[in-house]
Amino acid sequence: MEYRIEKDTMGEVKVPADKYWGAQTERSRNNFKIGTPGSMPKEIVEGFAYLKKAAAYANHDLGVLSVEKRDAIAQVCDEILAGKLDDQFPLVIWQTGSGTQSNMNVNEVVANRAQVLAGGKIGEGEPVLKANDDVNKSQSSNDTYPTGMHIAAYKAVVEVTIPGVEKLRDTLQKKSQEFMNVVKIGRTHLMDATPLTLGQELSGYVAQLNYGLKAVKNTLAHLSEVALGGTAVGTGLNTPEGYDVKVAEYIAKFTGHPFVTAENKFEALAAHDAIVETHGALKQLAVSLNKIANDIRMLASGPRSGIGEILIPENEPGSSIMPGKVNPTQCEALTMVCAQVMGNDVAITIGGTQGHYELNVFKPLMAANFLQSARLIGDACVSFDEHCAQGIEPNHKRIKELVDNSLMLVTALNTKIGYYKAAEIAQTAHKNGTTLKEEAVRLGYVSPEDFDAWVKPEDMVGSLK
Amino acid sequence: MEYRIEKDTMGEVKVPADKYWGAQTERSRNNFKIGTPGSMPKEIVEGFAYLKKAAAYANHDLGVLSVEKRDAIAQVCDEILAGKLDDQFPLVIWQTGSGTQSNMNVNEVVANRAQVLAGGKIGEGEPVLKANDDVNKSQSSNDTYPTGMHIAAYKAVVEVTIPGVEKLRDTLQKKSQEFMNVVKIGRTHLMDATPLTLGQELSGYVAQLNYGLKAVKNTLAHLSEVALGGTAVGTGLNTPEGYDVKVAEYIAKFTGHPFVTAENKFEALAAHDAIVETHGALKQLAVSLNKIANDIRMLASGPRSGIGEILIPENEPGSSIMPGKVNPTQCEALTMVCAQVMGNDVAITIGGTQGHYELNVFKPLMAANFLQSARLIGDACVSFDEHCAQGIEPNHKRIKELVDNSLMLVTALNTKIGYYKAAEIAQTAHKNGTTLKEEAVRLGYVSPEDFDAWVKPEDMVGSLK
Amino acid sequence: MEYRIEKDTMGEVKVPADKYWGAQTERSRNNFKIGTPGSMPKEIVEGFAYLKKAAAYANHDLGVLSVEKRDAIAQVCDEILAGKLDDQFPLVIWQTGSGTQSNMNVNEVVANRAQVLAGGKIGEGEPVLKANDDVNKSQSSNDTYPTGMHIAAYKAVVEVTIPGVEKLRDTLQKKSQEFMNVVKIGRTHLMDATPLTLGQELSGYVAQLNYGLKAVKNTLAHLSEVALGGTAVGTGLNTPEGYDVKVAEYIAKFTGHPFVTAENKFEALAAHDAIVETHGALKQLAVSLNKIANDIRMLASGPRSGIGEILIPENEPGSSIMPGKVNPTQCEALTMVCAQVMGNDVAITIGGTQGHYELNVFKPLMAANFLQSARLIGDACVSFDEHCAQGIEPNHKRIKELVDNSLMLVTALNTKIGYYKAAEIAQTAHKNGTTLKEEAVRLGYVSPEDFDAWVKPEDMVGSLK
Amino acid sequence: MEYRIEKDTMGEVKVPADKYWGAQTERSRNNFKIGTPGSMPKEIVEGFAYLKKAAAYANHDLGVLSVEKRDAIAQVCDEILAGKLDDQFPLVIWQTGSGTQSNMNVNEVVANRAQVLAGGKIGEGEPVLKANDDVNKSQSSNDTYPTGMHIAAYKAVVEVTIPGVEKLRDTLQKKSQEFMNVVKIGRTHLMDATPLTLGQELSGYVAQLNYGLKAVKNTLAHLSEVALGGTAVGTGLNTPEGYDVKVAEYIAKFTGHPFVTAENKFEALAAHDAIVETHGALKQLAVSLNKIANDIRMLASGPRSGIGEILIPENEPGSSIMPGKVNPTQCEALTMVCAQVMGNDVAITIGGTQGHYELNVFKPLMAANFLQSARLIGDACVSFDEHCAQGIEPNHKRIKELVDNSLMLVTALNTKIGYYKAAEIAQTAHKNGTTLKEEAVRLGYVSPEDFDAWVKPEDMVGSLK
Repeated sequence: MEYRIEKDTMGEVKVPADKYWGAQTERSRNNFKIGTPGSMPKEIVEGFAYLKKAAAYANHDLGVLSVEKRDAIAQVCDEILAGKLDDQFPLVIWQTGSGTQSNMNVNEVVANRAQVLAGGKIGEGEPVLKANDDVNKSQSSNDTYPTGMHIAAYKAVVEVTIPGVEKLRDTLQKKSQEFMNVVKIGRTHLMDATPLTLGQELSGYVAQLNYGLKAVKNTLAHLSEVALGGTAVGTGLNTPEGYDVKVAEYIAKFTGHPFVTAENKFEALAAHDAIVETHGALKQLAVSLNKIANDIRMLASGPRSGIGEILIPENEPGSSIMPGKVNPTQCEALTMVCAQVMGNDVAITIGGTQGHYELNVFKPLMAANFLQSARLIGDACVSFDEHCAQGIEPNHKRIKELVDNSLMLVTALNTKIGYYKAAEIAQTAHKNGTTLKEEAVRLGYVSPEDFDAWVKPEDMVGSLK
Repeated sequence: MEYRIEKDTMGEVKVPADKYWGAQTERSRNNFKIGTPGSMPKEIVEGFAYLKKAAAYANHDLGVLSVEKRDAIAQVCDEILAGKLDDQFPLVIWQTGSGTQSNMNVNEVVANRAQVLAGGKIGEGEPVLKANDDVNKSQSSNDTYPTGMHIAAYKAVVEVTIPGVEKLRDTLQKKSQEFMNVVKIGRTHLMDATPLTLGQELSGYVAQLNYGLKAVKNTLAHLSEVALGGTAVGTGLNTPEGYDVKVAEYIAKFTGHPFVTAENKFEALAAHDAIVETHGALKQLAVSLNKIANDIRMLASGPRSGIGEILIPENEPGSSIMPGKVNPTQCEALTMVCAQVMGNDVAITIGGTQGHYELNVFKPLMAANFLQSARLIGDACVSFDEHCAQGIEPNHKRIKELVDNSLMLVTALNTKIGYYKAAEIAQTAHKNGTTLKEEAVRLGYVSPEDFDAWVKPEDMVGSLK
Repeated sequence: MEYRIEKDTMGEVKVPADKYWGAQTERSRNNFKIGTPGSMPKEIVEGFAYLKKAAAYANHDLGVLSVEKRDAIAQVCDEILAGKLDDQFPLVIWQTGSGTQSNMNVNEVVANRAQVLAGGKIGEGEPVLKANDDVNKSQSSNDTYPTGMHIAAYKAVVEVTIPGVEKLRDTLQKKSQEFMNVVKIGRTHLMDATPLTLGQELSGYVAQLNYGLKAVKNTLAHLSEVALGGTAVGTGLNTPEGYDVKVAEYIAKFTGHPFVTAENKFEALAAHDAIVETHGALKQLAVSLNKIANDIRMLASGPRSGIGEILIPENEPGSSIMPGKVNPTQCEALTMVCAQVMGNDVAITIGGTQGHYELNVFKPLMAANFLQSARLIGDACVSFDEHCAQGIEPNHKRIKELVDNSLMLVTALNTKIGYYKAAEIAQTAHKNGTTLKEEAVRLGYVSPEDFDAWVKPEDMVGSLK
Repeated sequence: MEYRIEKDTMGEVKVPADKYWGAQTERSRNNFKIGTPGSMPKEIVEGFAYLKKAAAYANHDLGVLSVEKRDAIAQVCDEILAGKLDDQFPLVIWQTGSGTQSNMNVNEVVANRAQVLAGGKIGEGEPVLKANDDVNKSQSSNDTYPTGMHIAAYKAVVEVTIPGVEKLRDTLQKKSQEFMNVVKIGRTHLMDATPLTLGQELSGYVAQLNYGLKAVKNTLAHLSEVALGGTAVGTGLNTPEGYDVKVAEYIAKFTGHPFVTAENKFEALAAHDAIVETHGALKQLAVSLNKIANDIRMLASGPRSGIGEILIPENEPGSSIMPGKVNPTQCEALTMVCAQVMGNDVAITIGGTQGHYELNVFKPLMAANFLQSARLIGDACVSFDEHCAQGIEPNHKRIKELVDNSLMLVTALNTKIGYYKAAEIAQTAHKNGTTLKEEAVRLGYVSPEDFDAWVKPEDMVGSLK
């Protein structure tokens, strides 16, 4: 491989000749051979592209950067956002906890790429842009990385997670209405209980997702605050007056999302509670989705030795050895995603506790876990929706069989003959393998006519809306 | 010990003669000898007392319970709330996951205590109240336990957690303003960085707590919804029309908190995402408090071989072997509480995922962990406030010494001579053990006059508000 | 209340006159009003009693403590172990993270109680024992607390956890052998699969518990190491030569467990990885137990609309509203315990990471969570064993019905007619609601005779041992 | 793109013409668009290659597979192991929880690649190998996936994790011996305490890693058990007699690691406690490494306003805004890895609890998290070792300054003048900002000569070994 020589304040470094990155990126590549190369999430690089461009515009507006430099920076940032420079960001999550080297990776790529775009050669002649003095102007890693993290996190939640969950929620809502009159056995403690309708059952899932979506949205205001302008330790050293507000406006403009400058920059560097907060809500969604997916696979279990009250789509052969087997694979993918999100929540929580003084240095860890969760939930909900939820159908025959046979219909008699006599009827029918009606009559507690009038599953399900 | 015979639908049970509880409580006592007896939180019993009284009033209003029974129930509930019957609730957390037996414990105590208050003897004569048919009227364990859990959780958060955090927040806010002009060295990556003021540093903590309080408050609407009225599987079987709304109004009236009936009763029984949600916000507070307490103990470390920038109260001898030692014990208590809350969050998360069909049967686990967290955070903040935060004082001598000596003041030169030359100055001073000024002048980059004019810590801290 | 005046190096404190504790305990009571009073686990106090007595003996043997003082200390320690002084330990978990104040609580109680036992009056005359100089001789909080913690933890695991798990394991082993020939349907992905026997199914649970027990036992060597002798920062300052080995021998003798002195005292104070390690194994047991209990409640679900393949004991009425309902309550208690243990593991993990320099100051948190887990697992296994596992019986009728009806018996045909044709048979039977045999013959793939010869559930379960 | 038509038991599917995979892989690609494509860890694919080859050999030995088919399978497996077919495995973690589709991916690739290697064309002519009947012979997904998972996990731990940790341990051991006589101040509660040597301090880290390594090794026996032979539900249906033992022998031979057949196949499919167990030990290592890395960055903090007792290598410029700043970046990378491992432990724990009946369907989740942890710990230890630990040097000047100045040297006086007088000396010196000696003499408790004789830091550190 061919190399060129790059320099930083520590001296010279050999860099692959065909890459735009510079000395600091290369040092990091060599010093942090931990896990998969290039693991720093691409969404973070995009977040940097947005903010570097916004900073260039704000710097220009405030008179500290020429229009030529602004446009040179913006041009490369746009290339990054268009995915044209994806192979220029080789760094890993497991580097410095401030993400300094990923900030410098972007600074170096922007500066060197601009040199080439201007017809120059990297490292030769007057530099079009200097990585630290121009591209990083009015910035520090300590405020850029959290800004990039918030941009990436906000976008992922709003563009991937929420739409995915809403899509699934809408399907479940539609199914709930469709099946609102399908009376079925209820189950508590996994044991037979009084009846409800399949639509009511599904309405609980819809409610869960609605609460979860509301919880996520409640956190977005905090997540929309960006640290940019709080350089170094949060004081905004070396930034022009009014810069923080202006740069946030540009970020909002370029991303199309309502970003604002963080009210307290010290908090914004030293703590990442906004990440903790929103991920807490993602975890709540994982809790809800886990319950829903688990219920659906239990309800669909069988085909002959399970519950079998609903049918779900048969998407692929389920077994390499058992011919004809079909499995609730979408439920499995979704519950695995939920477990991952719950684990990620602990990683983020631990990272969040460990800020020291003016800086939290678990930023890349927190970002990577957050972005994985946000994307997995969104993707998994879409997959689950398309390949499972949309195809849910009641197994009417099975549902009717089970509800008619249930001993817990006896509960309807509580208000007629009291809890104790009702219990005796149920226990006797259970012991004898008979029906409630047989025993109710035989014990002399209820006449056959009254039984039929009083014990109607369809009257036991309350109001249907 | 003397016993009397109690009965339930399964048969007879011997119960201690001096206790009001009945057969089902006694069965549970015997069947669940797990951990400390009586571990079911007292706040849950109080929650039941509120809801049983509210149910009695609602039942009476709706014509299904006599005024005499209503008042008999209310009288015992008031005794429970006054703490007069504390020794009547011997059950443990680790019982049935629906808390059925704790519901029955309350039902039985209310019925038997009412018998005695009416001048009767337990188990003799016409019962004043029947545990299942009167005290539990229009209720099931499945909707009472989550209602009791929400009452207890809401009260704990609003009456203990939030006031405790606010008290600490107020102190830190006051200290932040007081120390707003105390210029000190900043630290990032635990390494010397550019200066800020002690007030700015503390303002970050205040911001964290404000975000945390807002996050907690965002969750209260969900937590204020009560399941009562969603009997058995959520359908409201055996409840009178309009009961759910009315009973929630009575709960609101009796507790003084804005409880409302849950919009979807199926969700309210089968999932406890409201508990997951609010505890997620408590966990966020734990993350913040951990950061704050950890910083404070590091800033106060010493007295001679640590950072020593602040002084905190000396509350007790710190060592049984090292004479004169004083330790940041309140920080330690608080960070232990934070670790507990983070662990509790996982227990609650796992419990929350495991609902099956119409019922989540991890209710007592979720309740117990939630209530512990809510109380510990509130108590620990008050303790930390009174015995530590209120006494924080700057060690001005030490602070000045460190800031004057700092190499990172060189950052002020970036915009004057560029990042690279500034770095050279800092590196040389570091290597030679000299001052920035000496090297800046010696290297010929800055005149002594310019240095003094440009490098002023007090000009590097941005705006102070 | 009456008070007396106690003194420490910081000055005077008013202490309740009827209590043996002194100034430092009282300071801690007042400074740490966090959570339930007296929450420091009693097992820790007992651990201290063992180690104080052992230290007295070792100190005497090594010539630094008189025989009178040794015996005075030992006498009070024996009273503590006999439970006679339970009301003398009012401190909470949430105190200093070294547990210094609980160490001093014991020191003070021993000194003052000895004064009274000697016929003296607290605070008057020549003290029989001095709290710091005699009772705490050759000790510091930093080595006593972890020693007390290891004693308590080891005892809990060996005396409560392991016997409880073994008891349950033995029952499951017995049941497994008893039901080794009961052929039933297998289920993978919750879906019908090829058959196995109920005994085989239970044998998996036995294997899980055996692995878990082995894992716990693997950790005991580390847990048996005690820090005593590594005073202050681990160097053993102010301890006589040979003291650490000797005091561990006395602890071993007094407790009956094989405690030894820690190989590296710096590790033993600054880290509590032994607690992390053993609790990791407890968490593994929780994972196993959760799986087992969850399976059992699913297998027992019904009675008419669930799986219903096994019967478990009916211990108590299951519902306050649904008459005759019986629930798998022991499974619920056990799975709640498992969730708690998993949460505790995170609290312990976080505590374990946070040692700073020569001391980990999350000791009481780690101890309390560990001891809760150890006890809950042990108790819950015993409860589950006695009230559930011992009563498990197959529902032979249901088991036979389901296995005979299963489509997955088709797997036996793979090696005869190939996977594809076998799949076609199963899919057709599923679609038509017919039997495998009907379709196998109709499709012309198998003769009726061959089908009967080839498809025998009892031949599909492999070897039974 | 060009396509060819592939078939499975559900019908036809279009597959990219240039890929070897078949219908089931393609279905999975389309049905599970969740997260990054190809996220199923490569180590798992390699595990499959080992086991497919081993199964082919065992099948041949036992007379159920021809030598030609055996060799055809082995040849492709060897290509996979050589990395020649890396682009043939496009599936994601988030698929069916049994990993069935990844098993089929391997089966299909082996069959089709063999067809090509034999000079044939995919889907034309007599197939050299059939994916289900030959490549998957005597196997099911349910026993292959856990086998592949154990192979991958065992190899990662033994080949990456353990060597990495040992490398770091060896360096720390060497440094500990090297610095065994460097007397420094100790710190407990972050506060000044009695002295120890830097070598002693490091010896605690060495002890932690040794315990952690032992804990990991304790788990390897369980992890070395492979499920292969326990087809479908664990019964070994459709496998020849003696196959399970033989196939494990081949796996051991091909991998060079001591794999054996699992004692209980039902456990091996339905639970993955071995993964939980070993990962628990990895988490313990994370706890230890977090403590060590955190200590090292605190000890190295400064250069002028921190602790500054040790010097660590300066690897890269630390700040994009603060010139000359150097940060403990390796400590940060390592502690982020630790947080990730702790989060992964929760994901694995949750996955481990959720087996249902005969199968745990969180296999890919558990595998992916495990393999990430194992690799990250190993890599991060090597990185930390090479770029940080090997360069640790004492800052002798600073160390001496701090120890000489310490008030806690007073502890040496306890045994001479008692704890109370010693405390008075320390408190007075602290208040007056004087030395211990000055106050000891001034208070008349110790003569200057005695003080010098008694208070020697180097005599307070115990034995040095």
